[in-house]
Parts: sequence; C-alpha cells; structure tokens
Amino acid sequence: MTPRYRLHYAPDNASLCVRLALEELHLPYETALVDRPGQSHKSTAYLALNPNGLIPVLETPDGALFETGAILLFLADRHGGVFPAADSPERARALSWLFWLSNTLHPTLRMLFYPSHYLPGQDAALRARTQARIAGLLDMLEAEQANRPLPILSVCYAAPMLRWLALYPVGESDWFTLVNWPRLHQVCKTWDDRASSIAAARAEGLGDTPFSAPRPANPPEGSAT
Amino acid sequence: MTPRYRLHYAPDNASLCVRLALEELHLPYETALVDRPGQSHKSTAYLALNPNGLIPVLETPDGALFETGAILLFLADRHGGVFPAADSPERARALSWLFWLSNTLHPTLRMLFYPSHYLPGQDAALRARTQARIAGLLDMLEAEQANRPLPILSVCYAAPMLRWLALYPVGESDWFTLVNWPRLHQVCKTWDDRASSIAAARAEGLGDTPFSAPRPANPPEGSAT
Repeated sequence: MTPRYRLHYAPDNASLCVRLALEELHLPYETALVDRPGQSHKSTAYLALNPNGLIPVLETPDGALFETGAILLFLADRHGGVFPAADSPERARALSWLFWLSNTLHPTLRMLFYPSHYLPGQDAALRARTQARIAGLLDMLEAEQANRPLPILSVCYAAPMLRWLALYPVGESDWFTLVNWPRLHQVCKTWDDRASSIAAARAEGLGDTPFSAPRPANPPEGSAT
Repeated sequence: MTPRYRLHYAPDNASLCVRLALEELHLPYETALVDRPGQSHKSTAYLALNPNGLIPVLETPDGALFETGAILLFLADRHGGVFPAADSPERARALSWLFWLSNTLHPTLRMLFYPSHYLPGQDAALRARTQARIAGLLDMLEAEQANRPLPILSVCYAAPMLRWLALYPVGESDWFTLVNWPRLHQVCKTWDDRASSIAAARAEGLGDTPFSAPRPANPPEGSAT
C-alpha cells in the first residue's frame, strides 16, 4: 500500500521537524531526498510543489503542503494527540507559540544561517546582531517552558532549531550554548530518547544525542548543507 | 453582555487584520487602545499578555492569544466560514499560504519598517534589499491568487500588508505601486467595499479606499506609529 504522505527532505533540514511529527503520530510515509547541492529544490518540478523553493514539502492526498508550521499543524489536526485540538481551552496559547516558532524564531535562524540573503556584504555584523536577538527569543521560550510546557508538536519544531543553533553555520556556532537555557536543554535531553527522535536520527545520521549535544550530521544519503 | 473577545489594538497596526476577521465573522468584540507612542505595549501588564510586546493581542475566554496568524486561525476554526475547515480538502493549500503570510511576507515587512532592529546603521541598504525581496514575494502571491483565490481569512491578513507597503515607512514608500500586481490590486478594490472593511476603516480612520488606494490614517483615537 502506498503511504498517504511523501516528505521531500534533506538531512538535518527543516524537514526534520516534519519527520519527527510523522514519527510521533505513527504515520507511514515515504521520503524523497532533495538534492540540495544540486539545487533540485529550485527546479521547475519542485517549485510547482513549493513556489518558495524551500525544504520541506509534504505531499498529501489533498495536495502538497509547504511551510514547516503549516505541515505540522495540518498533521496534528488531522491525526490528533500531539497538539491541543481546535475546541480545547489549551488551543489559544499553543497556537500563539506555534506561530511564534514559525514566524519569529525560525526566520531569525534563517537570518543567522543565510545573512547575505538579507543584506550582502554584512555577514559578520548581521550575524552578531542576530545572535543577540536569538538569545532574547530563547529567553522567552525558556520562560514559556517554565510556565506551560510546549506540546509535543511544538517540540518537534523547537528541538531541531536548538540543534541547528549548536551546529550552523559550520564554524560559526561557538556563541551558542544550550545549557544557558536549562529548561530547553532538559527538553532536548528527554527528546533525544524518544522513539521518534531515534528513528529520525537513524534516517538522517544525527547521532545519539541529536538535540541535547548535537554533533555534525553524517547522513546515510544526501547532504545537510 | 460582555463580548467574549477583547482586541488590543493600535490604528493601522497588525491588529487591523484581526479586526477585519472579527467583522467578517460578525463577532461582538471590544477594543483596548494600545498607547504606542507611550510604549504601553512594553509595559509589564501588556507583556503578561504577549511576551513579545507586539500588537495585537486578543483576549478570549481561553486566555490571551498573540501572533496575528494564530489569532486569525483560532477565530476561523472556532467560528467557521472564512477559511477551509480542518477536514476540508482545501485546508492543506490554504494553511501553507496562511503560514507563508505570517512567517515570510509579514517578517519581511517588519524588516522594511524597522531595519535598525535587524542591523543598526544600515537602514538604506537593508531597505533597498528588502524592497526587492518583497517584490519577489508579491509576485508569488499574485501567481497564487491567479491559481486559487485566497480565502477570506487570508485576505484579512494580506490586504492590510498591501496597504502598509503603500504608506510606510512614511516618506519611504514610493517604490511600491500596487497596480504592478493587478490581481492583488483587484482583491483590494473589491475588499474596500466589504462591510468589514468599511467598519474597520471607520474605527481606525483609514478613508474610503483603505486597501486599493491607501491614504495616511487619521484615526479617531490613538496613533498609527
């Protein structure tokens, strides 16, 4: 039987968030490796799935979804159990933070990783400023985690971002130390041992402490960058 | 009877998107003016509602929501009729574009309006680069509108952003001409005449062509900037 979901992924890319959610939901899925070095996500065929030319895309019986946050929420609402349902009194707060992960933290990471996309020739200055902004955002997330722990779906989004901060850009991540945010560090330590995390780490070559003490990806296929 | 919703707003701020959705959904609501010049959105009381210190916040019986996209989706899912329901085959695509408005277009506008937040001392260079990026994003939105018209909820988000591009930053918006994106221009022309738009324009002093041919806000209370 053909799985109903097909995840276009590259190892240790934003598709990792979706893979974690698919695993948490015990959903069968197949994967399609995006040839990042070959820029296949800028091909006409890929742009027809996601006009942004970004990873991930999730093909579903209802067509292709893009934007990590959209895919995560779609899966959660269709299958249940990892995020407050639409009629839950917990929905309001959880949705606010899910959008925040998507429209505040995630774009700030993109600015750290690809500064020249935003302003060519100012990489060092933009990175330094962005690092300071990210630290402030993580302070907020740390406070929220103390206040009300993130739902599983939101950890599927947040844990990979915390991983990437420890690794990327390669050679430029020394500023970041997860233990400065002890509650987020604890979330990642617990997350390392979940079945979803172990399955994702095996598929993408992320090692045995992929979130609490990340090491560079050594994927069985494809390239993380 | 006390309305169940309370919108913390400033005229012509992102709260406008939420006001439009509340009007479209015919929901009773009250408003609380945020004293932007007095920085009341950075007060302890406001930060308890939204730790980002940004406008809008929507207080609900389930607590305070923040992030424009989260508030819009929350209202749509609770009340129905303005966005594909969770079990609709249209949900996947609509959700992708709603998140895109929230995490791609909206943050790019913020960079245009507040460049020094991202990199002090490079306002002109960052604005020029950001203008070019926004033009590319609007090309994508124009293509999507040709392909499949945006749901009402998404227009509640997109139309104000198109308005702001024509007005802000004050004195720096000449680069933008909405007619370059004829389908988006047509959406705005139609939108100007909707009851929701007329009600919002009256409340916030936006004139009679608030989206297709914006003029500076002249609000009955508060300040847009």
